[in-house]
Amino acid sequence: MRINRARLAESMDALGKIGETPRGGLNRVALTDEDRRGRDLLVRWMKEAGLRVSVDRMGNIFGERPGTEPLPPVFMGSHADSVPTGGKYDGQLGVLCALEVIRTLNDARARTRHPVGLAIFTNEEGARFQPAMIGSGVMAGKIALEDAYNARDRDGLRLGDELERIGYLGPEPCVPRPMRAYLELHIEQGPILEEERIPLGVVEGIVAISWSRVTFHGVQDHAGPTPMRIRHDALVAAAEVVGGVRSIPRRIGGDFVATVGRLDVAPNIPNAIPGRVTLSIDLRDPKESNLDRALSMLDQVVRAAAKREGVRAEIEHYWRVPRTPFDAQVVGAVEEAARALACGHRRILSGAGHDAQYMAVICPTGMIFVPSRAGRSHCEEEFTALDDIEHGANTLLLTCLNLAEAQNVGM
Amino acid sequence: MRINRARLAESMDALGKIGETPRGGLNRVALTDEDRRGRDLLVRWMKEAGLRVSVDRMGNIFGERPGTEPLPPVFMGSHADSVPTGGKYDGQLGVLCALEVIRTLNDARARTRHPVGLAIFTNEEGARFQPAMIGSGVMAGKIALEDAYNARDRDGLRLGDELERIGYLGPEPCVPRPMRAYLELHIEQGPILEEERIPLGVVEGIVAISWSRVTFHGVQDHAGPTPMRIRHDALVAAAEVVGGVRSIPRRIGGDFVATVGRLDVAPNIPNAIPGRVTLSIDLRDPKESNLDRALSMLDQVVRAAAKREGVRAEIEHYWRVPRTPFDAQVVGAVEEAARALACGHRRILSGAGHDAQYMAVICPTGMIFVPSRAGRSHCEEEFTALDDIEHGANTLLLTCLNLAEAQNVGM
Repeated sequence: MRINRARLAESMDALGKIGETPRGGLNRVALTDEDRRGRDLLVRWMKEAGLRVSVDRMGNIFGERPGTEPLPPVFMGSHADSVPTGGKYDGQLGVLCALEVIRTLNDARARTRHPVGLAIFTNEEGARFQPAMIGSGVMAGKIALEDAYNARDRDGLRLGDELERIGYLGPEPCVPRPMRAYLELHIEQGPILEEERIPLGVVEGIVAISWSRVTFHGVQDHAGPTPMRIRHDALVAAAEVVGGVRSIPRRIGGDFVATVGRLDVAPNIPNAIPGRVTLSIDLRDPKESNLDRALSMLDQVVRAAAKREGVRAEIEHYWRVPRTPFDAQVVGAVEEAARALACGHRRILSGAGHDAQYMAVICPTGMIFVPSRAGRSHCEEEFTALDDIEHGANTLLLTCLNLAEAQNVGM
Repeated sequence: MRINRARLAESMDALGKIGETPRGGLNRVALTDEDRRGRDLLVRWMKEAGLRVSVDRMGNIFGERPGTEPLPPVFMGSHADSVPTGGKYDGQLGVLCALEVIRTLNDARARTRHPVGLAIFTNEEGARFQPAMIGSGVMAGKIALEDAYNARDRDGLRLGDELERIGYLGPEPCVPRPMRAYLELHIEQGPILEEERIPLGVVEGIVAISWSRVTFHGVQDHAGPTPMRIRHDALVAAAEVVGGVRSIPRRIGGDFVATVGRLDVAPNIPNAIPGRVTLSIDLRDPKESNLDRALSMLDQVVRAAAKREGVRAEIEHYWRVPRTPFDAQVVGAVEEAARALACGHRRILSGAGHDAQYMAVICPTGMIFVPSRAGRSHCEEEFTALDDIEHGANTLLLTCLNLAEAQNVGM
């Protein structure tokens, strides 16, 4: 049994049209009208594939294909939202490969002891509402439903209101549900598979992630008649932190990464000394202890910058996801499937957070990576070759058949 | 003859209500609905004071009180737009003191040989449309009308369209008109008068100003799986420039000031490496040669930052206003008026750009400064005591009477 490559490519094209950017990327940010249109198409396809579809109170979408026994289902899935100028592979690919696996099971009239399902999680990217992975985070009990509802975007719109507006505030409770396993196929988003010319990554786990927010309160004043000696410029302090954050990976070494991705200046006009600047700090490492060291370095950098410029600093370390090892049996099943397909593979650690990180709290979880051209993602240039996608989708199919205990098929 | 302090305070209150912020500041950005409402009130007051009002193709508003002879008028004025979270004194005070002078002339049935006028210039702040002082700049022939019309705000709206939308695209050509003199009262926006406890500044001229825009094009990518070794982060380069710009005044010394007031990051989300950052650089000095030195330092800083981070840099030095000395006779007349009022005063150079800088190209020009509390402006905390305002307005009145050649009044 193998997936239908042409049908998968066709679905990728159709879904990729919703929120497509002029440069061929994707702008389908969580809970926008584009997100709604993407969800509507996916729900239609899920129903056409015979799945029983339900939506929970966080807008997470689940579709189930019955098994022959009343056992916990094997779920496959990912997310359908994108960053503002993102690509057509991050998230969407995992959803469509899972759908293609289910369509393939249908074509083969395959019977499995466990039901097989497709899960689509809300606001994985965290581009519009922070933190990221909020739909799976609430489901895993790691984020309170009320906190999630009260997350606000830049325009002050509430996540809960926007969920209702697009018609995806569902009736089902958003709580852990029994699952035999959760499997997520995703692009690597890093350069390793491509550099080593290996078409498939067997993901062993996800690094620890920390998100912080720093706000400097300076003294807003006129850029002309205000002598340098009396200035308290919030942006000068913030720029020092951007440089300081860049130095942390050099001090810690290894695979540590640190990023200032967002920086907002007020009033942000050419002739006013910035009175307030807020910046985001994203820190990641396979080792929890390195993250702890980095956070204390960050605190020092912020305090030193605030002192030097005479501005007030607020630091919030508002989100942390611990290092997540995946389930040994599920990782083994992915590896076995790749081997059965004679597909080159290696074990790999994910540097990106995924819904699988929260799902691992609920059930045995694993992931499959396919290569990203030049390691690039969260950009319009995101690309994965269809050959690699086919390998990945077939690996997902065989892993699913194994864990769901297929009864009438040759694998 | 003296101005009516209570009436002036009342007008300040009434106009300050239009665009008032919750914290008592002013948000009346150029060509917004608030700007229109502010203009409408001023035009009504000007007509009530018997002025013949006209509007030119840049939305500059002029009102004239006849003289006894067909001579070029003495104009007083300033601007009525504010920065987004600005104060109630910058610009508005100069307009209202000029109006109060005219009302006082009416009360006294004063006759002047030269007509006396009030001028209100469009988009002085440059907060929404760049460059600043665009209304007087077009009038002085230093900015092309078409370039001004084509300036766009952050939302892509054209200045020309917005001018038409608020009903202030007037019929009169925006060209130099004969003027005996132009007088502008303004808050100092710096700390000198307050520090020296001097209530009035006789402005000798305005420093040279340069505005540049730098854009770094890096490689947008995911903040997690992208190793530090392959990153090209536009914000890291921009932060280095913010620090470099701060160091320029230390290297040049004297009164040199340098400010990065605006910085925009794309895509500006916590988990993407910034792909593009644009920042503004405002440089000012009394000496043109220091500005030239600073611009070459800036170029070096930008090139070094781009090289270190492996990103591409674009630099545009898109606006420059030369050092502007004011007319000796007008400066002398202001000084004489202050002396006649027994008002403490000193000569001072303006670090802020003003419409007077462009008006000096057209006619003999001078300015009067009143103190700014703590030197602060372009912020909601802007404040000038009414006693100081009264001194300033009376100095404006006497200077105007002198230059317009009052015929029937005791000064």
